[in-house]
Amino acid sequence: MTSPSSGTARRAGVVGCGLIGGSIAHGLRAAGWHVTGDDADPARAARANALGALDAVGLDPAAEITFLSTPVHALPGVAAAVLAATAGHGGVVTDVGSVKRAVVEAVDDPRFVGGHPMAGSEQEGVEGAHAAMFEGATWVLTPAAGTDPAAFALVRSVVASLGADVVAVAPDRHDELVALVSHVPHLTAAALMGLAAEAATEHATLLRLAAGGFRDMTRIAAGHPGIWLDICAENREAIVATLDRLGSALSTLRGVVADGDRPSLLAALENARAARVNLPARAAGRPVDVAEVRVPVPDRTGVLAEVTTLLGELGVDIYDLEIAHSAEGDRGVLLLLVATTQADVARGALFARGYRPAVRLLQS
Amino acid sequence: MTSPSSGTARRAGVVGCGLIGGSIAHGLRAAGWHVTGDDADPARAARANALGALDAVGLDPAAEITFLSTPVHALPGVAAAVLAATAGHGGVVTDVGSVKRAVVEAVDDPRFVGGHPMAGSEQEGVEGAHAAMFEGATWVLTPAAGTDPAAFALVRSVVASLGADVVAVAPDRHDELVALVSHVPHLTAAALMGLAAEAATEHATLLRLAAGGFRDMTRIAAGHPGIWLDICAENREAIVATLDRLGSALSTLRGVVADGDRPSLLAALENARAARVNLPARAAGRPVDVAEVRVPVPDRTGVLAEVTTLLGELGVDIYDLEIAHSAEGDRGVLLLLVATTQADVARGALFARGYRPAVRLLQS
Repeated sequence: MTSPSSGTARRAGVVGCGLIGGSIAHGLRAAGWHVTGDDADPARAARANALGALDAVGLDPAAEITFLSTPVHALPGVAAAVLAATAGHGGVVTDVGSVKRAVVEAVDDPRFVGGHPMAGSEQEGVEGAHAAMFEGATWVLTPAAGTDPAAFALVRSVVASLGADVVAVAPDRHDELVALVSHVPHLTAAALMGLAAEAATEHATLLRLAAGGFRDMTRIAAGHPGIWLDICAENREAIVATLDRLGSALSTLRGVVADGDRPSLLAALENARAARVNLPARAAGRPVDVAEVRVPVPDRTGVLAEVTTLLGELGVDIYDLEIAHSAEGDRGVLLLLVATTQADVARGALFARGYRPAVRLLQS
Repeated sequence: MTSPSSGTARRAGVVGCGLIGGSIAHGLRAAGWHVTGDDADPARAARANALGALDAVGLDPAAEITFLSTPVHALPGVAAAVLAATAGHGGVVTDVGSVKRAVVEAVDDPRFVGGHPMAGSEQEGVEGAHAAMFEGATWVLTPAAGTDPAAFALVRSVVASLGADVVAVAPDRHDELVALVSHVPHLTAAALMGLAAEAATEHATLLRLAAGGFRDMTRIAAGHPGIWLDICAENREAIVATLDRLGSALSTLRGVVADGDRPSLLAALENARAARVNLPARAAGRPVDVAEVRVPVPDRTGVLAEVTTLLGELGVDIYDLEIAHSAEGDRGVLLLLVATTQADVARGALFARGYRPAVRLLQS
């Protein structure tokens, strides 16, 4: 245990003391940070403090990093307030909202880095918060053109220290992807559960027939609906587009079943099966053989976002990231640690975008 | 352990020695039955025998009850053969197919009772078979108008002795219900997984973002596609109708999201949440307070099916069932054991259909 009031402890802030904010606070305290937490509802901040998630209640202007875990619609306002309050110490601010484009566009500040940990969305309340919440979870960061590389590197390292597996994705791309792997599946589970509930009023037997597969498929529909109103509002466009694609896929399957087209049905099911079986397990941790990719970069905006999101799209994991500024001042060097097996694809992609990366093999 | 070749052991048969057939065989042997098993592939029967699921390989003409767990399309032929082979001893035959109307119509014999245990459909092979497979699982029986009540009562008691929670449902109703809680969810999981796989070829990051909810929703898509070709062929009508209903529900949700209609979205999600939270857990076993419902019935066909499926539709659990033939010979009495709390609804429903039931409270 570190002393909560140690003058040498690094200082962090959390705004929004629910399940995610509370878990971040617990994780940071466990790592020795001094954590100050705030909430629009003072009782929630007091509760988080009483439960040992916080060292102090309030907004810490000296916080090196502040995590915003408020409802999505409140983020732009809260971000502006926290950025202003922490400006004197150059504090970095990041959020944990489930939709990213709107907030990243609204909060156009070099010290702000959008983020989204893929964990814990079905529960609520600081009572369920714990320091290990993010171990092995994917934590998306969405750097924009204006993001300060140093701010990104800080958020990246702090988030990784919580045990998360960090991946950089462009904000609009993030929103499209989560529409497909989270938002539309949630709505689909709700639709299936709704149909079943309707049918169950006529046939009480129905829900007795709901075995494991149905339970698995509809589990997420048991989550609190509150956050989904914001999500569906903020990510409307991608959700509607993805619902259209799902509708079209189901309509194709309907035709295949109606026509008794066994080869097409088999192909569709085999394809889905192979994809499901290959769904990556949680992050396996840093590989044994790693390579350092050194990328000389001009000191201009957008480079960090371009490099990290390009590698993210290619599925290249960045295990560590550092920014070294060269003596000349107008250029820097981005140091990326990747698996040796992924060094070549990273080099090729960066080269194709005009960078001149150098790869050095290391033993980790 | 009973002696496998005991002359006094009750005799049972299993045709189709896969996961389900093997588990039934294991369960029956554990309960002291002498079990003979057959399979279109002799190697599979030999394997089941070697693994201790069977006492003997082949078809037992003296089997009191024979379970058919072959692929659905083979059931009518196999049922006819087994009914003919066991006719001399009046053997009862039941199946475990996932679709019921077609087989029940095809096998129109008083000694045949359609069945469907809601368990284990995602695995394959006798290697995974075990005696406890059906403990707490719902096992549907689909008595038809021509089903011999004594045959139904036998299958019911044997299946219950395997630990299953038995519910009677009319064959066509069964097929509609499983389209909704099993077949369409499976196709939907495959469609979602297919969309994700397609998107993942462009954005390698995508599957990294697939957290718990998506994994849960698509888990069933990892099952072997083989059985689904038969299921989709046999239950085409109900599956197509249910896909249409799901398409319509998703289209409604799409409109709600596109219009930013928060009250309607909240209502839909709250409705789904309440239904999911109330999804009954696995059978809680026989309640403390039970009542005996005595139903004088005419000795005519269809009575058993009507009574049991009526109570099934009302959600009334039948914990035990016995058929007593009266001395006069032209009437019988159906003895049903139900929870005391459900005795009145059962009495009311049966009365409304022209029966004159009497209820007697018991302590179990």
